Amino acid sequence: MAGAALAPTMSGLEYLRAMLRGELAPPPILPLLGMEFIEVEEGRAVFALEPDEYHYNPIGTVHGGVACTLFDSAMGCAVHSTLPAGTRYTTLELKVNFLRPLSRETGRVLCEGKTIHVGGRVATAEARLVDTAGQLYGHATTTCMIFR
Amino acid sequence: MAGAALAPTMSGLEYLRAMLRGELAPPPILPLLGMEFIEVEEGRAVFALEPDEYHYNPIGTVHGGVACTLFDSAMGCAVHSTLPAGTRYTTLELKVNFLRPLSRETGRVLCEGKTIHVGGRVATAEARLVDTAGQLYGHATTTCMIFR
Amino acid sequence: MAGAALAPTMSGLEYLRAMLRGELAPPPILPLLGMEFIEVEEGRAVFALEPDEYHYNPIGTVHGGVACTLFDSAMGCAVHSTLPAGTRYTTLELKVNFLRPLSRETGRVLCEGKTIHVGGRVATAEARLVDTAGQLYGHATTTCMIFR
Amino acid sequence: MAGAALAPTMSGLEYLRAMLRGELAPPPILPLLGMEFIEVEEGRAVFALEPDEYHYNPIGTVHGGVACTLFDSAMGCAVHSTLPAGTRYTTLELKVNFLRPLSRETGRVLCEGKTIHVGGRVATAEARLVDTAGQLYGHATTTCMIFR
Repeated sequence: MAGAALAPTMSGLEYLRAMLRGELAPPPILPLLGMEFIEVEEGRAVFALEPDEYHYNPIGTVHGGVACTLFDSAMGCAVHSTLPAGTRYTTLELKVNFLRPLSRETGRVLCEGKTIHVGGRVATAEARLVDTAGQLYGHATTTCMIFR
Repeated sequence: MAGAALAPTMSGLEYLRAMLRGELAPPPILPLLGMEFIEVEEGRAVFALEPDEYHYNPIGTVHGGVACTLFDSAMGCAVHSTLPAGTRYTTLELKVNFLRPLSRETGRVLCEGKTIHVGGRVATAEARLVDTAGQLYGHATTTCMIFR
Repeated sequence: MAGAALAPTMSGLEYLRAMLRGELAPPPILPLLGMEFIEVEEGRAVFALEPDEYHYNPIGTVHGGVACTLFDSAMGCAVHSTLPAGTRYTTLELKVNFLRPLSRETGRVLCEGKTIHVGGRVATAEARLVDTAGQLYGHATTTCMIFR
Repeated sequence: MAGAALAPTMSGLEYLRAMLRGELAPPPILPLLGMEFIEVEEGRAVFALEPDEYHYNPIGTVHGGVACTLFDSAMGCAVHSTLPAGTRYTTLELKVNFLRPLSRETGRVLCEGKTIHVGGRVATAEARLVDTAGQLYGHATTTCMIFR
């Protein structure tokens, strides 16, 4: 929770870079799901995951919620990275398309989120989920509200 | 994985009821996130969660991916519960609206998924996420493809 | 444009009821597409349409944009009907599921929009499109921002 | 309706190019809303519109349904342009984000749709709506089912 308390005092990009350098603990959901936060720049963030059986749903592939968590992280951080200190955001809605199932055979996947629009009160972003060969597994968009 | 292998031999409702009775192991994502599968009938499924700090995102509330996992589970199982043996489904897309943040102060929440339309090739479903006082935290819809 | 100018001085429900009674001209998009505004109460609005060939797309059924216009109207007015005088709203996003094609054989269809959540800054709504036999042709949700 | 009858005998790209050259009548919804179909290549289609008062909603800007019609057209034709003769598609769902209102002051806008994924049974596409200065007014995604 220390990290969350610091968030309002830093710009989004400073905050996310401090997390990337390991100076702030990652949010607990990341190690729980085996997700890694690997890149951030203004308007763009990337997360990685090695899908395994502990991510599986009842029908024998990675649960859609795992991909949603990657998408929500990548797009939320892409939006956050554009915000000055003292500004907060909240995700209003998230839309995910699943194109191919993820399984332990898929190997490492990368989820890259990018802002589409950052306005005074609303931001939108998009993300794609690909394996190391560039094959597309899903894509998403989101709408965030910004509190300046 | 034993459960996943059995899935094609049972109707969706038989399969999900066997899981509810504990005769089939729950999919690993459920205990990982602390989710409970608590009710199923034809076209309807309910999951529960006690939000806690291990679900948190970098901004100090439950990560949106956790709610997405509840929504995807509740709506996917609602669709699955309508399918005869030998029929599979896959989720094409998921759309989630977040209305209020979840935190450890929220207490237990219930996510109820219900089918809207089950056709020959496509099914749609909706879900709502509420606390024990009936307060609404989010809602979702999904589109699934059915392979008969 | 006279109606649009009056909007800020009346509550949403008063404004929409005046339009329903014919005291305010309907917005031009309605007669253009043959849409009728037929019912409004707090948090609920209904539009009707008689699908015909002039609504058709290149593949010989009613263009999806016509159903979107019904959904956007019904959900936007459902949200508007809950707002006091001096309050504006704007639609941030709209999500539509198409279940069956509309054609001139379908006959009159009704699109009913209802609010799900009306908060201080955000409202969400849902809608269903049915024929006179109650058959479901599509459903939708929307997210609106409110300026109080 | 002559155009719709020819559709199955031509590839999507041939059919859409014949329409672009004026050899097939445009679907009636286009002239009704003042939309122009202006470009097509494999996986990409562009429509244009000059927003005017006859497109307005009750709150004095272009009705969201008009933008939806542009988005649905551009993305549907982008998908159609990838299909061989004898193949049909249907739009399962459409998700639109509105970033700025359109009005008669906006001037001509272009809506470009592009496929993201074209698989055996499912295709997805995205679209952006911009004015002649490149300002973004909205974006959208869609999921289509393909019948081969």
